Amino acid sequence: MHRYLLTPLLASVLLAAASPPATPASPAEIVARAPAAAWRAVDPDNLLVMDLANGRHVAMELAPGFAPVHVANIKALVRAHWFDGSAVVRVQDNYVVQWAATGESRPLPAGVVAHPHAEYDRPAAGLAVRPLGYRDAYAPQVGHAEGWPVASDGRRTWLTHCYGMLGVGRDMAPDTGNGAELYTVIGQAPRHLDRNVALVGRIVDGIEGLTALPRGTGDLGFYTDPKMDLTISRVQLASDMPIADRPRYQVMRSESPAFAAYVAARANRHDAFFVHPAGAIDLCNAPVPTRRAP
Amino acid sequence: MHRYLLTPLLASVLLAAASPPATPASPAEIVARAPAAAWRAVDPDNLLVMDLANGRHVAMELAPGFAPVHVANIKALVRAHWFDGSAVVRVQDNYVVQWAATGESRPLPAGVVAHPHAEYDRPAAGLAVRPLGYRDAYAPQVGHAEGWPVASDGRRTWLTHCYGMLGVGRDMAPDTGNGAELYTVIGQAPRHLDRNVALVGRIVDGIEGLTALPRGTGDLGFYTDPKMDLTISRVQLASDMPIADRPRYQVMRSESPAFAAYVAARANRHDAFFVHPAGAIDLCNAPVPTRRAP
Repeated sequence: MHRYLLTPLLASVLLAAASPPATPASPAEIVARAPAAAWRAVDPDNLLVMDLANGRHVAMELAPGFAPVHVANIKALVRAHWFDGSAVVRVQDNYVVQWAATGESRPLPAGVVAHPHAEYDRPAAGLAVRPLGYRDAYAPQVGHAEGWPVASDGRRTWLTHCYGMLGVGRDMAPDTGNGAELYTVIGQAPRHLDRNVALVGRIVDGIEGLTALPRGTGDLGFYTDPKMDLTISRVQLASDMPIADRPRYQVMRSESPAFAAYVAARANRHDAFFVHPAGAIDLCNAPVPTRRAP
Repeated sequence: MHRYLLTPLLASVLLAAASPPATPASPAEIVARAPAAAWRAVDPDNLLVMDLANGRHVAMELAPGFAPVHVANIKALVRAHWFDGSAVVRVQDNYVVQWAATGESRPLPAGVVAHPHAEYDRPAAGLAVRPLGYRDAYAPQVGHAEGWPVASDGRRTWLTHCYGMLGVGRDMAPDTGNGAELYTVIGQAPRHLDRNVALVGRIVDGIEGLTALPRGTGDLGFYTDPKMDLTISRVQLASDMPIADRPRYQVMRSESPAFAAYVAARANRHDAFFVHPAGAIDLCNAPVPTRRAP
């Protein structure tokens, strides 16, 4: 009893067999049935693989279309082994996990721009956005573009701080950070950070290796005891790994009919569990499906 | 360097000393300076203290004004030691932690209503709501009432699934759960669950004891290995504890001027870090301040 409670995707799968044929497809069913054309491969040149000393692996997709200089910096840092031997140093509950703050006094590797300009948004022109279709507290328009959650005012478009998004730690303005320190969101989307920090990507696999870490007890959730720091053994770009060793991921195309059906189904749940479908959804509750390449 | 990154409350404290006097008060400063009249004590008869076998303690405030039968059930279960020796059995990343699913076949203690009616909302009449003042994807009106995050359609009002809210696990409709199994939200607010589950309160202290637990690898995040279950040593009502041992908490009154100032400051951040104050906030990013009684 009570094994269901509530379930974003999986219960719909469990229930599918028992559902009468007339039941609209669940989000999970829509994802499972989406044709190959609904998926795009994550470019191995934009895929980071981070190995943690506890044996966990975290895969991240970078978003050069939104923060090209910061993303180029991160790739240069990775190739210079900047992150290897660094550590997760901050875990603030319902907020962020942050890593690689150690070694701040090391000189930056060649090719890294020490002070990139503020890539907090980009021109709206040239980027097709699929509108979410529901209200947003923070922006006049929200939706998805090229598989990314975005907001826009019609003139500028920006990535949004949804769960698992990847950002660049920085000091006070006008420093924008250089990519040598990164964080990911592990709680309620801190959308007030949108356009205040350079977002550079998202975690596509293994976020549990970061979200389940002990919370730091120092100010802002920093670990006060260096023994709590979790060492990052290695970060690699997938394109630098032997082909046979590269993990391969896919992201659902946000312009695909399957994605539209997925969002609609998440906003209007017809699973047996739901007595009151919401009839709406907020941006960060419509995560773009990702998967291992079949 | 880069110690700040982003910071909901604490950095404003850190920065306060360096800020010019003209800077508007930060959310943390507003909370710190709020007069005693801005706070209400958590009634010890609505305060649960859960002791975990790993030495952590979780304090929860119940909300009888929204789900009276479910809350009465939970108190009866606690007094019958229902939860003592039960366990946390489910941790689903970016979703919920759930406990006390074990022992489902035990008979319910006397006084527990086996099948409460669906206390998913309540009449709007008789409950003053302070409007948040910003758009919400899910409901025509959102705000706070008696220190709780709520949504309303003008006729009915209901608690919302913000981070740390406490809900009653249930089976498929029309079962509403009886309070013998509880969960809390540990990710992006799953607002689609609003009005589908009985929310009965929130965690006021110690949520880190639940959010940092290993994620379950079974369907819906259930632990597949019973060795992963985290034993709940004991759950008590504070009013049943010796007075000297009771923890005492306070919740900011959501109808107080201090709370209005706090929400406004969170929506319009003037900390030195922010180059683009959001000018808005969503309901679950305006958590009602709680604290240990001074």
